[in-house]
Amino acid sequence: MTSMDRLKQMAAIEAVKLIEADMVVGLGTGSTAAFAVEALGERVAKGLRIVGIPTSERTAAQAEALGIPLGSFAIHARIDLTIDGADEVEVGSLNLIKGLGGALLREKIVASASQKLVIIVDESKLVEHLGTKTAVPVEVVPFGWQATKLRLEDLGATVNLRVSQETTFITDGGHYILDCKFGSMADPKLLESQIAQTVGVVESGLFIGMTSQVIVAGASGIRVLVKKVYYPDNGISKAKE
Amino acid sequence: MTSMDRLKQMAAIEAVKLIEADMVVGLGTGSTAAFAVEALGERVAKGLRIVGIPTSERTAAQAEALGIPLGSFAIHARIDLTIDGADEVEVGSLNLIKGLGGALLREKIVASASQKLVIIVDESKLVEHLGTKTAVPVEVVPFGWQATKLRLEDLGATVNLRVSQETTFITDGGHYILDCKFGSMADPKLLESQIAQTVGVVESGLFIGMTSQVIVAGASGIRVLVKKVYYPDNGISKAKE
Repeated sequence: MTSMDRLKQMAAIEAVKLIEADMVVGLGTGSTAAFAVEALGERVAKGLRIVGIPTSERTAAQAEALGIPLGSFAIHARIDLTIDGADEVEVGSLNLIKGLGGALLREKIVASASQKLVIIVDESKLVEHLGTKTAVPVEVVPFGWQATKLRLEDLGATVNLRVSQETTFITDGGHYILDCKFGSMADPKLLESQIAQTVGVVESGLFIGMTSQVIVAGASGIRVLVKKVYYPDNGISKAKE
Repeated sequence: MTSMDRLKQMAAIEAVKLIEADMVVGLGTGSTAAFAVEALGERVAKGLRIVGIPTSERTAAQAEALGIPLGSFAIHARIDLTIDGADEVEVGSLNLIKGLGGALLREKIVASASQKLVIIVDESKLVEHLGTKTAVPVEVVPFGWQATKLRLEDLGATVNLRVSQETTFITDGGHYILDCKFGSMADPKLLESQIAQTVGVVESGLFIGMTSQVIVAGASGIRVLVKKVYYPDNGISKAKE
């Protein structure tokens, strides 16, 4: 295990401490989220009673192997806490870009059904302005994707259909991914709403106003980011960290 | 053929007169749209050169049988004119509810790629306020549909998962339909945007600001509705009919 992996594991253990008995817990997907599932497995082995809602088949398999009881949305449509990774985190707002791994749809459905969303990342994922480093993955309906691409270009993006092993990448839900490079975003919330209202779009990888806290693994250790609180009446912004 | 069918056929012939040589034409789905495809087939047989973009397999089969050349979005991402039916038409705004037949996703993708959308209905589909008669079909991702249903209920709807022959109805795109009864709508545009931004929603059957004109088949004959034009500076509204 690399030293960064060890730090991510420490961050994951911190995140898993937030889980309490009898919670319904959303389980993210990806290499960082996998550390959280592992840490949760250890707590379950010691007697913690929870129900997990996995965001992918891969996560479901890992959780099952660790003896974590899994539930479904049919019974648990409201989730107490979800732990997941992210591809880009905007420091002030804690808004996210997610879905480079292709699981954005289930992750967003689980996140938006959650009371709390806790994100674990290494510090390379932190940015001042969302869109600086990565493209926004947008999951779209295959029928007419070319017309949908034109409309996303009209919003100012450079758009590429995602391919994998020389064929069109297909998501768990049977959709395509258009990777939309917007560059540094002035108003991610507005953009998210414009993308959502674009006909042919199933979901975008912009997670706006969903994050409760971010646990960052860095060379100097673990730190927790909480949303900056703005007081519009006096213009003072207060960073809790 | 019933007298209403004969009137619908007359309306379809009127709509098809709007098609000019070398146009890319969106072909709707349903019993009313089928009259338009039939009328278009007659014009093509007489030498009209167009390319059709069908919104369903059923329409594609009918068009092919009539010798209408069909194209795909891969080549034609912008459509000149689309002719389709509707389940409810709001008289002043020409906003629509569509998708009771389950083809709303492709119909909306084709409509929003179209320069002009011409709707053919019988007069029983006209309402003063959208939502009065029918539920809004909302196409959703199967994963987590129960949580999506809760969020749509939060918007004020009575929501039912569509079933067909005692099993969950599945759309061409592999999604479910939640039929959302909102009742008479004060602000369909706002509602459409709220539904579109609901995580888990693929597309709703609210077609806002898309219609160019409506051709209505009624007992007294055929009439054409054009959008009421509002002049916000003097408050006068002008109905062109």
